[in-house]
Parts: sequence; C-alpha cells; structure tokens
Amino acid sequence: MLKERQLHINRILQKMQENQVEACLISTPVNTFYVFGRIFNGYTYLDADGRLLGLVRRPTDLKARDLNLPEEDFFLIRKPEQIPQFLLDRGLRLPGCLWLEGEEMPQSQWARLSACFAAARILNGSHALRQARSVKTLREQALLRESARRHEAVYRHIPEVYRPGMTQTELAVEVEYLMRKGGCLGLFRTYGNDMEAHMGSLLSGDNAAVSSPYDFALGGAGHPSNPIGADDSPILEGQSVLVDMCGNFNGYLDDLSRCFSVGRLPQAAYRAHQTALEIQAYIQEQLRPGSVCEDIYNGALDIVRRAGLADRFMGKAQQAHFVGHGTGLVINELPVLAPRMKDVLQAGMVLAVEPKIIIDDVGAVGTENTFIVTENGGEKLAGLSDEIVDLTDN
Amino acid sequence: MLKERQLHINRILQKMQENQVEACLISTPVNTFYVFGRIFNGYTYLDADGRLLGLVRRPTDLKARDLNLPEEDFFLIRKPEQIPQFLLDRGLRLPGCLWLEGEEMPQSQWARLSACFAAARILNGSHALRQARSVKTLREQALLRESARRHEAVYRHIPEVYRPGMTQTELAVEVEYLMRKGGCLGLFRTYGNDMEAHMGSLLSGDNAAVSSPYDFALGGAGHPSNPIGADDSPILEGQSVLVDMCGNFNGYLDDLSRCFSVGRLPQAAYRAHQTALEIQAYIQEQLRPGSVCEDIYNGALDIVRRAGLADRFMGKAQQAHFVGHGTGLVINELPVLAPRMKDVLQAGMVLAVEPKIIIDDVGAVGTENTFIVTENGGEKLAGLSDEIVDLTDN
Repeated sequence: MLKERQLHINRILQKMQENQVEACLISTPVNTFYVFGRIFNGYTYLDADGRLLGLVRRPTDLKARDLNLPEEDFFLIRKPEQIPQFLLDRGLRLPGCLWLEGEEMPQSQWARLSACFAAARILNGSHALRQARSVKTLREQALLRESARRHEAVYRHIPEVYRPGMTQTELAVEVEYLMRKGGCLGLFRTYGNDMEAHMGSLLSGDNAAVSSPYDFALGGAGHPSNPIGADDSPILEGQSVLVDMCGNFNGYLDDLSRCFSVGRLPQAAYRAHQTALEIQAYIQEQLRPGSVCEDIYNGALDIVRRAGLADRFMGKAQQAHFVGHGTGLVINELPVLAPRMKDVLQAGMVLAVEPKIIIDDVGAVGTENTFIVTENGGEKLAGLSDEIVDLTDN
Repeated sequence: MLKERQLHINRILQKMQENQVEACLISTPVNTFYVFGRIFNGYTYLDADGRLLGLVRRPTDLKARDLNLPEEDFFLIRKPEQIPQFLLDRGLRLPGCLWLEGEEMPQSQWARLSACFAAARILNGSHALRQARSVKTLREQALLRESARRHEAVYRHIPEVYRPGMTQTELAVEVEYLMRKGGCLGLFRTYGNDMEAHMGSLLSGDNAAVSSPYDFALGGAGHPSNPIGADDSPILEGQSVLVDMCGNFNGYLDDLSRCFSVGRLPQAAYRAHQTALEIQAYIQEQLRPGSVCEDIYNGALDIVRRAGLADRFMGKAQQAHFVGHGTGLVINELPVLAPRMKDVLQAGMVLAVEPKIIIDDVGAVGTENTFIVTENGGEKLAGLSDEIVDLTDN
C-alpha cells in the first residue's frame, strides 16, 4: 500500500511542479482518501519535496502508524492555526505558494486558512488535483473493474424484481436493495454542488424527459426536495425503463446504465437504441491516448444528427452537453466528453460513456458503460449485453 | 403555499435587518428549497424590501409561474455576471452590502460573485440563514411530524427482518429497504463538509465504540472510504443494536434511534439505557422557550456523571460533545445542545435529542427522538417506546 500511495503522491507532485506550487493542503474526504486510502477529518500537507504530513482533528485516537507515517510527521490538531508552528517545529519553511481546494472549500474556511499562511500566495488547486486523480493506477483500475463486475451481476437480477403495475420509485427501491445486497456501499459521491442523488436514477415514460436542476445526463421529476430520477407514476406497457445506478462497491465508482422494456417498444425506440450503441462503439474506438475530448463529443453528435435524433439526444427540453465523463472516487471525475473540452486522453483514464435518447411516450433508450483508456481503445468493464431487455420475458 | 413562502422569507428578512444587510443571494439547494419549496440551479435574490427574484440556470425550461413569480422577477441566466445588469434593468440598486452563503459556497464561486458585486461589502450569511431556518412554521412542524410518524412505523418492523447470524451491514440493508418501502426518500442531507453517510447508521458490539472522522453522535468502522456505521462483523448474542436512520420522508428530516438486543444484555446495559432515558426526560422538560443550550447540555452531563457513565457517554475513545441538535432540511440544523452554546430556545425550534452510552462488549444503548420546542416542554414526535426491544422475541 505504501507503493500505491507513492504513485498517487507522485501524480500530485507532478501537478505541483507543473504549476510551480510549493505545497498543497488537502482537507476534502475524497483527496484525503486518494492519498491515505482512508478518511480523517483534518489536513494533509504535501510539499514539493514530497514530504507528507498528517494533521488530524478526528478521529482523536488516530495514530501515526494508522496513516503509515513517522511519528514526527503526524500531529493531532484542534484548529488550523496550529499548522504553521507545526511546520516550523519540524524545520520546514512556510510555503511561499500554497494550494487549497478552492472549488470545494467553503469561503469561510479558505479565509481562515489564508490567514494562517498570511505570507503565502494561496492558489486554487482543485482542478489540478482532479487532473492528478484522472489517470488511474493499475490498482485503481482493478478496483473499478471489480465495481463494474459486481454492478453488472446485480443488474442481471433486475428482471426478477419487476412486477407489473409497479411505480418507478417502487422498482428503484427494489434495484437499490439488490445493489446493497450485492455489496454496493450506497454512498453516491459527486464533485461540486451541482449534483445530489440517492444511489442513482430510474426513468420511464414521460418522466425521462423532465428537466432537472442537476448536472446529470438525464433528469426526472424525483421529489421537489431532490428533483432527479424516479417518480411515483406506474411503469406502463410499451415504456422503457432506464436504470442508472452508481456502482460504489469499494470506494471507486463505476457507472452503468441499462435499458429495459415492458413488453415491446415502438420500432423507433429500438432504432434510436441502436444509434446509441453505434455512438458507444465509435467512442470506445476513440478512447486511446491522444484523442481529444471535444473531438469525441463532436463525432458522437455527427452520428446522432445523421440519425435525425439530435433534438432528443441527452434530454429534450433541456439537453445535457456531454456524452461521457471521468469516474473514480467521485462520479464526475475529469475528463468530460463535451464541447470545447481540449483535454487529451491518457492511458489509464477511466470514463463513463452514456449516449441516451428520449422517445416520446416511451422514455429513454441508450446505455452507459465505464471504460479504461488503452492503446487499443476503451476497455469495457462490464460484460453485460447492451441490448434492451424485456422485463415481461420471464 | 405563497403564504408559507412569505413566512420563510419573513424569517430571512428579520435576520437581514438584524445584521443590516441590504440583500441576500442564495445558491444552495437547501436554502433554495426553503424559499421556493423546490430546487433549481441558479440564484435566489432577496433584498431588504422583500423583493424576491429567481435567477435560474437549470432547468432551462423553468418558467416564472413554476416559481410563483411575476415575469419581471424571473430570469434564465447563463452566468452570475449577468445578475447586476438584471437588477439595474428592473430599477433596483446594487446592494452596498450582500450576503452569500460563505460556509457552504466554495471559495472559487465566492470570488467570482464578489467580482460581480465589486462595490458591495460581501458578508457570510450562512449562519444567519441557518438561524432563520431553525424556527419552524406550523407547516414545517407538520411535515416533521409526518416524517417521524412514518419513521416510527418503519422501525416497528425491524424485529421482523432480523435473522440470527446477520452482520451489521446485512441488517442495515434490510432496515434501509424497510425505510425506502415506507416512503423514505433516501437522501441524507447534511450541512457542511464534516458528515457524509448513506441513509444512517447501525451499530453493534465493539463497532459502536470505533471513533469516526465525522461529526455524528457515534462512529463505527463502516468502510475505509466512508468510515461510519455498520461493519461486516456478525451481530452476536448479548449485543445491542442501535439503529439510527435519517427520516427524510418529505424533504424534512426527523432523526430517530432505537436500541435492540439479541437476547438479554448484561444488567449494566439496561441501567445505562435507563440513564439515557432519564437524560431524555430531563431534556424534554427543558425544551421550552428561554432555555439555554449549554445549560441543557450541562444538565445532561450532570445526570450521566452521577450515574458514573461520563467516560462512555456519546462515545468512548472519542466522545461527541453534544447531546442534541436541530433538524429540518438538513440533519444538523441549529441549535446544538453543546458546551458553550449560548443560543436560547424559541418555540417552534425542532431538536433531535440523542443520549447514547457505550457498553464494553455489548455496543451502544440509549435513544433518539425529535422534539418540537413548546411552552409545555418538548413535543415528542414519535410514539414508539424507547425501551430496548429483544430481536429474538418473535
């Protein structure tokens, strides 16, 4: 595990060097977990020489050995104002330029920490840390493969829990129960303040086209207090059911959607589904080092335009302007397959690709799979068929 | 609903007047829901005269009527830089002093909005908005009563889903399934970055004493990526099972814990449980307008000290320094029953009271109930008995 930690730290150090930053102070659970493989409340201090310090508020009985740190690099703190003296006591100089997680840290905490390092230039390191996390180590890739494998094993049981007349919420509850029994941890981690959902979404009929305030691929009415996903309307004959749950089986989140039907769908739905699969096949081919994110998005858009479905791609009244996104410790890692995204793919990046199309009176069709970027194109993590499964074929 | 909205707005306006703030710009889902009873992505602008504007980024098809606003007070925006011109176009002056949600808004967004209102003094309104939310209207109280009623109905079924040999996680999954089937929305909303959990916690045996990085009453090992609550160890004869799930049945969250046992517990556990009930009865009596939070906490501590249990109250190696907390749109509203908290209770505040005590080799005992502060002391929202229920008595 120390070797694995060093690989993660090296990725952060590389970003620090590129940005000429002298030190980085991490406090979010996700980045703490990225460095230490566990979560504590407090601060992780990493300087450009690679010196790593654990400054822990809670648990108060955590020990240096729990973090695999030498005693002198571990400190139980009560407040951030203690940090500079701790550094000086160890013969370290205070950084002239320091990263904080400015896209995640509330302003009040940022102001307080800035005062602690009054002589330093404080910069926002959030984006660079996301970039560091975007290329996965072999172990991280293995964890994502494991999540996908367990995730698809759950989805194979979905037809067994469907009962005619169920509402979307009722079926969602059964799928969530399968997920949890299959080892899903439940927690749906997102980056930023633009997404919040319980475990995932299930959409059928007209609800699939309901616009949402959140930054997900599709919407759904949900509940007024959390307007996303399933509502309480019954799933009807001739409708599709698109299941999109977060696959958090070990802290690393794979993303997997599958489309089901209640009986036969109109022919237009199957045609649109094949267009989605064509887009997925095209993107899988592009998931190689050197590909540019916006090019992939534009290529996908070409396919959907040729099929005459551009006006219902990724939503209808409101359309999401992406077709894939990184995933890992949060469901929305970098990079994003979206317009104007110049990011260049690197081997080991992991992306969820989710071409989805709205069909009036039916719901959404399409699919979603998580892929690892390799020299040979995307490695698809789930083996489950992408075809529409009829829930009444039992 | 417009009357209800005005009551919420009046509470915010009162805080603005107390703090001499000219306008308030809200962007978090929770405060957006507090004002509009629904969530959108964008900004809610409220000035000291009570003028309310909806500045919506998503859903892009939202209309003024969906927010019950006149057309001229509604605007679809792409970016916050459009806000000042929108105000000027309506003949409003730019505020000289503006609240943003500084304890929740990431620094990068705060910096961007500050630049939009370059002439204004930007202040942190988070705490005052929490204070505004802390006193519930009659309708909010009714929603919390409903959540508690549905919550306790679920808990009555817990003994039915227990099977000998189950692990904590296995039983937690069954309880979560009961919760969802009983109408729980699942989403566990917290304030701040110090808590994250999937639906709640279930603790048994030694796991109940495991310290957590989070700010919950008790800990539990959970998973390294989310160290809270149930672990995968089996629940054994002679152990307690403390179930503490978030009761989000309508957007308003009640908090309810109940203690179960597998067979008989040692006598010390029942004695400690009675001490917890004694604390709860004492606090219920104090939940009246005029009571001071720290006094209530100190009174609770006196009881537990007299019982000789102070060293295992609210944890063991790490002890939580509170015995109750506000609840509502998030699980950790104001006020908090904790040391040095000078807040004075007001009628209509809603608090979850959760005296919990660790018993070695057994687990945690104690209880939790949600109360409304009234002139006659706390109104207990759940009627479910607080006594320990033996899961093997079937």
